[in-house]
Amino acid sequence: MDCIFCKIVKGEIPCYKIYEDDDVLAMLDIAADVEGHTLVLPKLHAADLDECDEQTYKKVMLASKKIANHFLSQGFDGVNMVVNCKSAAGQEVPHLHVHLFPRKNGDNVKIKVDHPQIKLNLEDVAKKLRLN
Amino acid sequence: MDCIFCKIVKGEIPCYKIYEDDDVLAMLDIAADVEGHTLVLPKLHAADLDECDEQTYKKVMLASKKIANHFLSQGFDGVNMVVNCKSAAGQEVPHLHVHLFPRKNGDNVKIKVDHPQIKLNLEDVAKKLRLN
Repeated sequence: MDCIFCKIVKGEIPCYKIYEDDDVLAMLDIAADVEGHTLVLPKLHAADLDECDEQTYKKVMLASKKIANHFLSQGFDGVNMVVNCKSAAGQEVPHLHVHLFPRKNGDNVKIKVDHPQIKLNLEDVAKKLRLN
Repeated sequence: MDCIFCKIVKGEIPCYKIYEDDDVLAMLDIAADVEGHTLVLPKLHAADLDECDEQTYKKVMLASKKIANHFLSQGFDGVNMVVNCKSAAGQEVPHLHVHLFPRKNGDNVKIKVDHPQIKLNLEDVAKKLRLN
């Protein structure tokens, strides 16, 4: 399989490692946009959140929490955790990954949701989308 | 405790419910910005990702995956999952919650990371932040 993250996991492509255990690898995002912007991914290939099995997903999310807590212990004041599932949501590499953005008070980083101005009736939306 | 999400969990304030189980509640975000924008939260109060115990966190993250999968089965093409931990990261209500944004191809929603233009040396950053 020609997956760039699988190649990084196998050591065929280098990375700036932040954390590793038997099941999970975390590395700096090469975008180098926000200090400490980290990607947390399962070593086992799963295309996205939808396709990832529960066990693997749990390991990735627990590692993400551990790394977020580590960032807070290193002098950061907050952390954003972002998962984009499928290209419609901006996922670029089809191997599940969690973005972590360590944050500082007044760092001028903004995670913004731009959206069309629409009038939603929340009662209708809830009826349509309610799971149980 | 004067927590608005705890009041919603107790039924003292109404919400547009999307999902509920013994430990987790999911409801539409009243911002009504993106169709289906949902907040997934533990019934047990935890201020944020940092303060939440592992068991509770796991339940919230598994429920979030389940709801994301449900959205995909309802005709959405993708989902964004966002957790803002602490006010430095834009967390507004100090009770842990996961934002889910159901997405459609070409919906003109954008989750953007605005950041100052800085020159980062990833090797230095990795050395500083590496956990293990």
